[in-house]
Amino acid sequence: MHATVRAALRSIVGPGHYRETDGELVPYSRDATPLFSARPDAVVFPADTSEVAAVLELATRHAVPVVPRGAGSNLCAATVASQGGVILVLTRLNRLIEIAPEELLARVQPGLTSAALATAASHENLLWAPDPGSRTVATIGGTIATNAGGLRGLKYGVTRDYVLGLEAVLPTGEVIRTGGRLNKDVAGYDLSRLLTGSEGTLAVITEATLALRPAPASAGTGVAYFPDLAAAGRAVTAIIAAGILPATLEFLDRSCVRAVEDFARLGLRTDAGALLLFGDDGEPGAVARALTRMGEICTAHHALDVTTAAHIAQAEALLAARRCALPALSRLGDLTILEDATVPRPRIAEMVDRIGAIAVRHGVEIATFGHAGDGNLHPTCVVKSRDDHDGIARAERAFADIFAAAIELGGTITGEHGVGAAKLSHLSAQLGEDQLALLRRLKTAFDPAGILNPGKLGS
Amino acid sequence: MHATVRAALRSIVGPGHYRETDGELVPYSRDATPLFSARPDAVVFPADTSEVAAVLELATRHAVPVVPRGAGSNLCAATVASQGGVILVLTRLNRLIEIAPEELLARVQPGLTSAALATAASHENLLWAPDPGSRTVATIGGTIATNAGGLRGLKYGVTRDYVLGLEAVLPTGEVIRTGGRLNKDVAGYDLSRLLTGSEGTLAVITEATLALRPAPASAGTGVAYFPDLAAAGRAVTAIIAAGILPATLEFLDRSCVRAVEDFARLGLRTDAGALLLFGDDGEPGAVARALTRMGEICTAHHALDVTTAAHIAQAEALLAARRCALPALSRLGDLTILEDATVPRPRIAEMVDRIGAIAVRHGVEIATFGHAGDGNLHPTCVVKSRDDHDGIARAERAFADIFAAAIELGGTITGEHGVGAAKLSHLSAQLGEDQLALLRRLKTAFDPAGILNPGKLGS
Repeated sequence: MHATVRAALRSIVGPGHYRETDGELVPYSRDATPLFSARPDAVVFPADTSEVAAVLELATRHAVPVVPRGAGSNLCAATVASQGGVILVLTRLNRLIEIAPEELLARVQPGLTSAALATAASHENLLWAPDPGSRTVATIGGTIATNAGGLRGLKYGVTRDYVLGLEAVLPTGEVIRTGGRLNKDVAGYDLSRLLTGSEGTLAVITEATLALRPAPASAGTGVAYFPDLAAAGRAVTAIIAAGILPATLEFLDRSCVRAVEDFARLGLRTDAGALLLFGDDGEPGAVARALTRMGEICTAHHALDVTTAAHIAQAEALLAARRCALPALSRLGDLTILEDATVPRPRIAEMVDRIGAIAVRHGVEIATFGHAGDGNLHPTCVVKSRDDHDGIARAERAFADIFAAAIELGGTITGEHGVGAAKLSHLSAQLGEDQLALLRRLKTAFDPAGILNPGKLGS
Repeated sequence: MHATVRAALRSIVGPGHYRETDGELVPYSRDATPLFSARPDAVVFPADTSEVAAVLELATRHAVPVVPRGAGSNLCAATVASQGGVILVLTRLNRLIEIAPEELLARVQPGLTSAALATAASHENLLWAPDPGSRTVATIGGTIATNAGGLRGLKYGVTRDYVLGLEAVLPTGEVIRTGGRLNKDVAGYDLSRLLTGSEGTLAVITEATLALRPAPASAGTGVAYFPDLAAAGRAVTAIIAAGILPATLEFLDRSCVRAVEDFARLGLRTDAGALLLFGDDGEPGAVARALTRMGEICTAHHALDVTTAAHIAQAEALLAARRCALPALSRLGDLTILEDATVPRPRIAEMVDRIGAIAVRHGVEIATFGHAGDGNLHPTCVVKSRDDHDGIARAERAFADIFAAAIELGGTITGEHGVGAAKLSHLSAQLGEDQLALLRRLKTAFDPAGILNPGKLGS
C-alpha cells in the first residue's frame, strides 16, 4: 500500500487509531475461522460515519481493499483480508443511541455487542430476539452483516426479521439511509435486507434501527434423551407437525454430550445417543402446556428419559450446556472445524445418517449439535494436531461431501454462519452460475472499484 | 410493436392466449389506481415458466417493454403499461403445488389468489398470515411483488417475512431459484427479499415457497369509540407501550364510520369521532386477557364506549366493517383516491391533525382509516365527479402535502401500496438522490435493456 494512502488513512482517523506494524497487525490477520489468515496492510478504527466515508472514498480512489470488521467472531473467514488492504474496525462506533419502548425499537451503532443490546432491552422489559452463540462478543454490525441466527430462530426468526432501517456508507463514499422506524415501508427496493447478510461486501453499516419485542412473561425448558440423533430428529418433526412453534429445539449428539459433561459437569446423561432441549416462552400457563405436550411427543418417539422444567432447578443451565458445546469440543484438539449445513426439518434424520456415513468414509470424527427446529446442523470435526495435514485434508473432503448432501436434500451450505472466503467455492453448486453472475452484477452496482471485502460474496 | 415481435409472442403462448385488438386491450389499460391508464400493444397469458422466459428473452432482444400483472388490484399504477409494450398476465400459473404441514410451508404459482392459499392452509390448521384488503382477488405474485401488508401486520409482519424462496425469470430470460424451504439460509445475497416489493421491475416471479404458521386456536375482537381519531391514536400508543402486540388494531374516522354504516347497516355508532377495532388471537385465555386489558386502556384514554368480544355476537362482522371502508367510501363519488402514508406509531395523532389541516387548506374532504398498529394510515379523498378537474388537482396537491408531512414525521410515502408510476416522483424526497441512483444501478444489474416495467421503481 502506497505511503500516500497510509498517510491519508492516518490523517482521517488520527494517529492513535491507525496501526501498521507487524505486531499490531497479527490480531487482525485472522477471525474465528480456523485455517484462514492473511496479513492486512493497515488497520483503522474510525470514530464516526464521516471517517468511514472518508476511508472508503479514499480506498475507491486508490483501489485499496477495505475489510469491515466488528469483533471478528465470524466462522466463515468473512473478515480476513484475503487481498490485503485495510481492516476497518467498527468497535469505536459502539453507542446505544436510543431505545423507544412505545415503538418497540432500538437505534444503535454497529460496534455495540448483541449482548449489550439484549441487556439494555431487557431493562425496558423488551427482547432483542437474535441470539447467536457468539452474542457476548459479536457486534450488532456483524450480526446484521452475517444475518445471524441462533437458538431462537424457529419461533423468533433471524436478524433480517428485526432490521427496520440502516445507515450505510457505499464503497464510493456516499451515505444512504434505508428503511426507518416502520414495520411497513415499501418505498424503494428492500436495501435494508439486501445489506443484511451481505457480509461486508456491499456497504459499511454505520447505524441500525432494530425491532424489539415485548419480553415474554416466563420461559421453561425440558430435556429428552434419545437412543440416537435420528430419533431426536423425528421427535422434532412431530413437534412442529403438532402445531407447536417453540422458542427452543436444540440437539446434541453423544460426542457433544460427553464433551459438554466433561467440560461443565452438569450431570448430563452420557450413555444416551442424543440430547434434545426443548423450551418455550410466553404466558406461564401456555408455556407449561407446550412443555408437557413436547415431552409427551418425545416419549411417544422413543425418548429414553424426559424431564420438563417443572422438575428442573435451572433451565438456564441446560441452555448453557447447549451454548458450551463448541468450547467443550474445542478442548479435544488443536483444530475445531465447525460447519452449519442446514436441511428441511423432515430431512434431519436422513442428514444425520449421511453425516455419519461421510465421517466413516473419510476416517474423521464428526460431532453434531445444532438448532433442530431450523434443521440447522453444526457438524463439527476436531483435528487433534495442527500438524496433521492429512487429517485436515480428510476433514475438508468430508465437509465438501456434507455440503453436497445438504444441497441434495433441499438444504443449504450455510444456514447462519455465512459464505465468506471459506465457502465461496461451494456457492455455485447451490445457486448456479446464472445467479452467481447476477450477484456479481449487484456487487458492482454497489462497488464499481471492487474494493469492499474482495474475494468474498459477490466476487 | 413490430409485426415480427407480435408473431413471435403469439407463437410462444399460442394464439388462444394472445390479445391485441382494441376491445381486448381495454381491461388491461388500467389497474385499481384511479387517474392512470395506458394502452398496451399486446397482452399475453403464458402457461408456464418456460413461456415466461421466452417472452422476456424476446422482449430484451427487441427492446419491448413487458409489464407483469396478476389481478391488477394494486393501488399505485404499478401494472399500467406506461411505455406500451406487452402486459404479461400470470393468472394461468395458478396452481397450489403443495402444502407441507410438517415444514410449515406452501409452494405456489404466482397466479393463485392470496385468499385461495389462506383457505387451503386453513384446511391444514395453518395460517397464511399476509392479509391485504384485496386478498380475495389479489394474486400471490402481486402480493409478493408489492410486499403487501394488511390488517395483521403489527403481530404477524408483512409478506417479506413469509417468503422462503422464489423461482424467478430475469428480464434476459435466465431462470433463477432463490432461497428454498429453510428459515435459515445465508448462501448469497438475499434475492428473495430484494424481489419482494420490487413491483415487477427486476424479475418475473414464477413460483414461491412461502412460510405458514400454526393457526391460532381462537380469536376475539373488541370495539371502542373515541371523540376523535387523535384520541384513538393515543390509546394505540398506550396499548403497544403496555407490552401488548395484538393481531388487530384498526381505526376509522367519523366519515368512514358513517359511510360504512350507510353501506352495510352494522349498527355502528355514527356520533363518535373515531372507531378503534382491537383484537387478538392465540390461546383462548390469553386472548380474553389481552382484550380486557386493551379495553381498559381505551377507557383510560377517554373512549366513549368499549365493547369486547364477549358481548359481541359476530366479531367477524366488525372486521368486515373495517374491510368495507374503501368500497363504502367509493359510493360517495366518481373518484376515490386512497393513499397509505405511514408514520411511527407515536406520531399518529400528530399526523391525523396534519391531514385535517391539509384537507382544510386545499378545500377537499379526506376520510381516514387504516392500520393503527403500524401507523399505516389510509387517507382517502372522494371527488364527486370525474369532470371536476379542479377538485382532482386540489386532491393531488393535498396528497403531496400529506407525503411531505409523513416524511417530516419520520414516516414513508407508502407503507404497503407501493410506488409504481403513481408515487415515483415523490420517492427522491424520501430516499435522496444517492439512493435513487443506487436503485437504478440495481435495476440495470437485473435488466440491462430496461424492458421490465419501465417508468416504475428503478427508473
